[in-house]
Amino acid sequence: MPESKKNIPMEEVAGNGLLHRRVFLSQGAALISAGSFNLLTARPASAQTTVDIPPWMKVPGAGMSGYGSRAAHEDYIQRNPVSALGTTGSGGSRTPLQSLEGMITPSALHFERHHSGIPDINPDDHRLLIHGMVDRPLIFTMDALSRYPMVSRIHFIECSGNSRVGFNIEPALGSCGDLHGLVSCSEWTGVSLAILLEEAGIDPRAQWVLAEGADAAVMSRSVPVEKIMDDALLALYQNGERLRPDNGYPIRLLLPGYEGNISVKWLRRIKVTAEPTMTRDETSKYTDLRQDGKSLIFTFPMEVKSVITSPSPGLSMSGSGLYEISGLAWSGSGKIIAVEVSADGGRSWARAALSEPVLSKAMTRFRMAWRWNGGDAVIKSRAIDESGAIQPSRDQLLEEKGTKFNYHYNGIQSWRVASDGEVVNVYG
Amino acid sequence: MPESKKNIPMEEVAGNGLLHRRVFLSQGAALISAGSFNLLTARPASAQTTVDIPPWMKVPGAGMSGYGSRAAHEDYIQRNPVSALGTTGSGGSRTPLQSLEGMITPSALHFERHHSGIPDINPDDHRLLIHGMVDRPLIFTMDALSRYPMVSRIHFIECSGNSRVGFNIEPALGSCGDLHGLVSCSEWTGVSLAILLEEAGIDPRAQWVLAEGADAAVMSRSVPVEKIMDDALLALYQNGERLRPDNGYPIRLLLPGYEGNISVKWLRRIKVTAEPTMTRDETSKYTDLRQDGKSLIFTFPMEVKSVITSPSPGLSMSGSGLYEISGLAWSGSGKIIAVEVSADGGRSWARAALSEPVLSKAMTRFRMAWRWNGGDAVIKSRAIDESGAIQPSRDQLLEEKGTKFNYHYNGIQSWRVASDGEVVNVYG
Repeated sequence: MPESKKNIPMEEVAGNGLLHRRVFLSQGAALISAGSFNLLTARPASAQTTVDIPPWMKVPGAGMSGYGSRAAHEDYIQRNPVSALGTTGSGGSRTPLQSLEGMITPSALHFERHHSGIPDINPDDHRLLIHGMVDRPLIFTMDALSRYPMVSRIHFIECSGNSRVGFNIEPALGSCGDLHGLVSCSEWTGVSLAILLEEAGIDPRAQWVLAEGADAAVMSRSVPVEKIMDDALLALYQNGERLRPDNGYPIRLLLPGYEGNISVKWLRRIKVTAEPTMTRDETSKYTDLRQDGKSLIFTFPMEVKSVITSPSPGLSMSGSGLYEISGLAWSGSGKIIAVEVSADGGRSWARAALSEPVLSKAMTRFRMAWRWNGGDAVIKSRAIDESGAIQPSRDQLLEEKGTKFNYHYNGIQSWRVASDGEVVNVYG
Repeated sequence: MPESKKNIPMEEVAGNGLLHRRVFLSQGAALISAGSFNLLTARPASAQTTVDIPPWMKVPGAGMSGYGSRAAHEDYIQRNPVSALGTTGSGGSRTPLQSLEGMITPSALHFERHHSGIPDINPDDHRLLIHGMVDRPLIFTMDALSRYPMVSRIHFIECSGNSRVGFNIEPALGSCGDLHGLVSCSEWTGVSLAILLEEAGIDPRAQWVLAEGADAAVMSRSVPVEKIMDDALLALYQNGERLRPDNGYPIRLLLPGYEGNISVKWLRRIKVTAEPTMTRDETSKYTDLRQDGKSLIFTFPMEVKSVITSPSPGLSMSGSGLYEISGLAWSGSGKIIAVEVSADGGRSWARAALSEPVLSKAMTRFRMAWRWNGGDAVIKSRAIDESGAIQPSRDQLLEEKGTKFNYHYNGIQSWRVASDGEVVNVYG
């Protein structure tokens, strides 16, 4: 066995108990002082200790199944559907970020944002039409699409309205998922839309495409051709299996890093155009009202952002001692290169460990060890992406964007940990 | 828009229609001759073409939900439980590899192999005991474990009995999943077991640990301490959410790259020992009978392997023309560095495109473009890992391991594509 390396002291790297990230960077050697954790967590046992035989070891267990399900004990972990008055399918449901780990979001908990519910599409009857400024308009069946070369990539999707409660004058109550759960991350597999457009032959004067969904709202958005040719996917699979209906079955347009709404679900039509179509969904909604009363339109990329998922409201702390601070960071502009964490309200910061693989336009899990002294503390995280962009404080964001903005909130999230272990949303 | 690069001919890179992998390596430029695919797949439309409004666009869709489910049209995709006579939970169920894409296996379709069914564990009452040759025996509740630093990693698990039908004298019938589906790949998050053992303080004379499950079979295996200190995880989360009961809820030992059986599910006890415990599960089973009648024991790492998932039996081809050959490769010794594909029965080979990220001890998706001429063809794949190991042919494997072996089959899989489009398992 490896040489023992006990009693290496845990190094404090920023104020109020943040510890060096080496705790997470290797496990081949002993990285913490012996007894550091167990004094507060595990129960010492004697060498003769045995554990009672629990009832589930005394009878044969349940049988296998064709398609598994989660433990009943975990059923309380749910998205939280909130619909417009008088509808069941116009609204959103948020990913319970505080209950998840790693970077992949289970498809069953991927956030939803629908404009007229989830259409019940028969894939055998579904068609994708590519037309407009092309040499050869084409219609694809699902079988035809499945013949094309595919690519697989891990990407987040974030609704541009995510975290909009950050614009509120007072800090909103709710869990991390309630406040920030309109973002999720999956492995997507599908056909590069660039290949299909090349097949159709794009008129060189074309600058935009219209993407239209097959829901009753006919949700549609305009996308620059440049983005399509860069990295647009027609996603057919999510996390290994076919898309779920609430994620656009059988085809979702996936525009990595762009605001989620433009990754049109239930895609039925791509029309190549010279100008943006100015659809209802990009004029009445999804524009950014500035302080001067004018609106920005077509603000596509989601900016660099992070949030601590644990501890967070609803996950109360049980006494002083060692904890892991865990969270998610992402950017529509590429890879996350660093996440800094503060446990003293932003006076001092230290770099968190990033979980590999760190991928472009994907969630990145960050982790930090924290020795909580049991007193009041404000914890926060800020992410930096490969473009050099740094997640702004709420004050910086409001100063830059104004108070009428209703989308693209990416301000730093502060959680106050009270001495009784309760965690709440605070500003500053 | 980008400059058009039409009419670049598709370059043939090996016999019988294998095409250069550049088709998959970029999508910023046009990579295929205009019309190459659509002549065989998409239906030309006129510029005035419209698509009928389908019934699902005429009514509001379904509402949102707390925990989503897949489309009813996809319900036929199932694991295939096969139990020992008189039991429902002693046996295995295989991942339908032929119906999946990307590298992540949906947790609901992760393979199962149980020895006495799935225990119904109450996590509040579950305990993990670490004892034996340690300074400080410890008992952990789930709450205590959740305080420790975690790590997230994407790894495959493969049962050592996977693909054992390859030892049969005649090629077995069945789908790719029926033959090779005792392998799956997930993002796992949990606590490094090395940290807990360091907390307990390992006796320097200890060389092994016993890992014991809380199922009625008390499935238990011996693991070298060296492996534990290298990369063993106590997995608590799978693909973002808590482990499923059929994957060891609430704790699974995860030993990346090792035969699946030793990644003990429903983990309840780690006993540190000087010698292997020689449990029933490592003496009566999971040993490798050699030609001379002696058995190998403790043959832990799964060797380099690959399989073409599409086309494969049950996924029939519909006429000559362009297809994607897609498959999975993995190795218990590290990263996959190359996968070669042949469409002429092994006379010539070409390198497939590997889907990023390529991760150590994880599934790697490979892809190859193929212009099928409509005639009889035998397609196969062989993987090479970073240790330099090359997946052997079935003949090489039998010559090396003998015909009495019953585990660790990693021979090259050949599929015969008949001129009517049917695909079957063949040898050679």
